[in-house]
Amino acid sequence: MRIAVIGLGLIGGSLLRALAGAGHGVVGFDADPGACSAVREAGFRVAGSVPEAIAGTDVVVLAVPLPVLPGVVADLDGYDGLVTDVTSVKGPVRDVMRGRRYVGGHPMAGKETSGFAASDADLFDGCAWVLCLEEDETVPADWLLLARLFTGLGARVVPVTAAEHDTAVARISHVPHLFAAVLAAQVGADRLAGALAAGSFRDGTRVAATRAELTAAMCGGNRDAVRAELRRLVGELAALDAALDDPGALVPLLRRGEVARRGWPAVAGDPRPEMSGVSALLELGRSGGWVTSVRDDEVVTIRPESGRNPS
Amino acid sequence: MRIAVIGLGLIGGSLLRALAGAGHGVVGFDADPGACSAVREAGFRVAGSVPEAIAGTDVVVLAVPLPVLPGVVADLDGYDGLVTDVTSVKGPVRDVMRGRRYVGGHPMAGKETSGFAASDADLFDGCAWVLCLEEDETVPADWLLLARLFTGLGARVVPVTAAEHDTAVARISHVPHLFAAVLAAQVGADRLAGALAAGSFRDGTRVAATRAELTAAMCGGNRDAVRAELRRLVGELAALDAALDDPGALVPLLRRGEVARRGWPAVAGDPRPEMSGVSALLELGRSGGWVTSVRDDEVVTIRPESGRNPS
Repeated sequence: MRIAVIGLGLIGGSLLRALAGAGHGVVGFDADPGACSAVREAGFRVAGSVPEAIAGTDVVVLAVPLPVLPGVVADLDGYDGLVTDVTSVKGPVRDVMRGRRYVGGHPMAGKETSGFAASDADLFDGCAWVLCLEEDETVPADWLLLARLFTGLGARVVPVTAAEHDTAVARISHVPHLFAAVLAAQVGADRLAGALAAGSFRDGTRVAATRAELTAAMCGGNRDAVRAELRRLVGELAALDAALDDPGALVPLLRRGEVARRGWPAVAGDPRPEMSGVSALLELGRSGGWVTSVRDDEVVTIRPESGRNPS
Repeated sequence: MRIAVIGLGLIGGSLLRALAGAGHGVVGFDADPGACSAVREAGFRVAGSVPEAIAGTDVVVLAVPLPVLPGVVADLDGYDGLVTDVTSVKGPVRDVMRGRRYVGGHPMAGKETSGFAASDADLFDGCAWVLCLEEDETVPADWLLLARLFTGLGARVVPVTAAEHDTAVARISHVPHLFAAVLAAQVGADRLAGALAAGSFRDGTRVAATRAELTAAMCGGNRDAVRAELRRLVGELAALDAALDDPGALVPLLRRGEVARRGWPAVAGDPRPEMSGVSALLELGRSGGWVTSVRDDEVVTIRPESGRNPS
C-alpha cells in the first residue's frame, strides 16, 4: 500500500519505519525542516509539502499534535484516500474530520523520550491501537483496511466509538495524571514528607514528572470526559472520606479497588475468527477484546477469558 | 542492652533478628503460640507472657497491631524501662501511653508478605525510622538511647512530633492508597478501560492490590490526618478541574507536581556532627534530614543538599 505519514516525531517516525519494514511504500512530511533532514538521512522519502506527500497515496496518517491538526486537514481538500490519525483524543478530531473519508486511531504507545531520534520500528508490537467506528457513519471496508494495516505491525486493534475511547482514556490515563500531580506537589514544600516517602509515593506519582505542557494539552484536549470522570472519582473519594469513621463501611469500598487491581490485566483467551459487522466489533471492544488479524471480511479476535476477569 | 520485643510478625520478628545480630540480649513474646514455637525453633528466647518477657529488660518494643496495643500496655504497669512501638500512627498511641516512659517509633519498612516466616534481619538497613519527640515531654536521653539502637541497625532516624508524623504519612502513604483504590476500581466494571490501561494505570494503582482490611486499618487509625489531607487534595483537584478550560492556568498548577517529582528524592549531603537538643532535632526532621549515628550527646546528621531539593 502507498502511505503518507504527516508529522515525523516519535509516533510518526516509528510508524514510517514500521510500515516500510512491513513492505509498504511510505513517504513522510514534517513542518520542521530539521526533522525532514533527519528522516531523509535515515533513508526515507520525504516530500516538500503536505499536498506533495499525499499525492497518489491510499492512506494518510496524521501524526501531528492536536492543536495543529485542523491546519493540516485543510491541505487534504480533494484527497480521495483514507485518512486516519494518532492523537490521544477522538471526539474533537471526529468533529474536525466530518464529511471526509476518515477513521480515527490512537496507538497506546509512548516513551519517556520524543522526536524522530527516539523512533523505533517495533514501537507498536503488542500495543493496543484504538480504531474508532460509529454506527451509520464508519465504512466497514475502511475500518478493516486500517485494522489489517496495524495488526500487520503487531498491534492489538481495539474497536470503540470516539466517545467510549475518550471516557476510557480519561479513566486510565488522563485523570491518573491529575491525581499524580497533586500527590507529587506535596513533597515540594514538605521536606519531611519527602524524606519519609517510599514505594507507594514513588509509583503513585511517577507520571507527575511528565512535562506540564504535555499533560495540560492531553487533559485539556479531552476536557469534557476528563472533567466528568474526575468529578465521578472525587465523589468516590468523598464516600471513602465518610467511611473513615467506620471500618465496616470502609472495607467493602476499598475491596472494589483490590479485586479490580488483582484481576488486572485480564487473562487473554485463544484467537477465534468472527464476522466483522460494526455492532459485533463494538461489542468486542466493550468486552475488553481486540482484533489480532484481518482476513477478507473476517476478523480474528481475542477476548478476556470468562471467569478470569476483573469484574 | 536487654530488649523485649512483644509481637513477632514481620516487623517484630525482623527486629528480634536484627537486634540479636547487633549483639543485644533479646527475648520475644507473641499472643499466638504458633508464632512463639516458630521463633523458638529459629533459636530465639521466647517468654510465656508479657510480664515474663519484660522482666529485667532496658527497652520494650511493642510490635503489635494498633487495635490490640492498649491491651498489651496494661501489662506494662510497674515497668521502669523505656517503651517504644512500631505502629504506623503516632498521635493515638501517644495518647494511650501518656504518663509512661515512652518514645513512639515507626520504621518505614514493609514487604508484600507478613508474619515471622517473612522476617529479615536486614529489613531496617537504610530505611527511615521515625522516632517521635515533643517539646517539654520527651526525655532527650531516652530518645538518644533509641536513636543509637536503631541507627545501629542501619536505619535513618527521623525526629518528628507525633502530629507531624501523622500528617506526613497521610500525605505520602495513606491518601495515595485511597487515590489508588478509586482509580483501580474503574477497571472492575469497564473492561474496555482495562484493555487500554498501560503504564500510568499500572503504577498509579499498584498499592490498590493491598488487602482492603489492612488499608482500612491504616487509614482509619490515622483518620483525622487522613481526612484533613484528603480534603486538601480534593481541593487541589477542584482547582485543576476549574483550570481545564484554560491551558494557561493548568500548566502552572501541573508544574508544581512536575518540579516536586523531578526533585524527589532529594540528594543527601555529607554527614556532620550536631548537638542534640529537642528543638534542633525537630528542625532537622522538618528540613528533610535524619540522624545517622549517635555518640554521647552528639548526633551525626545528614540533610538534603541545599539547592538540589524539591522546593
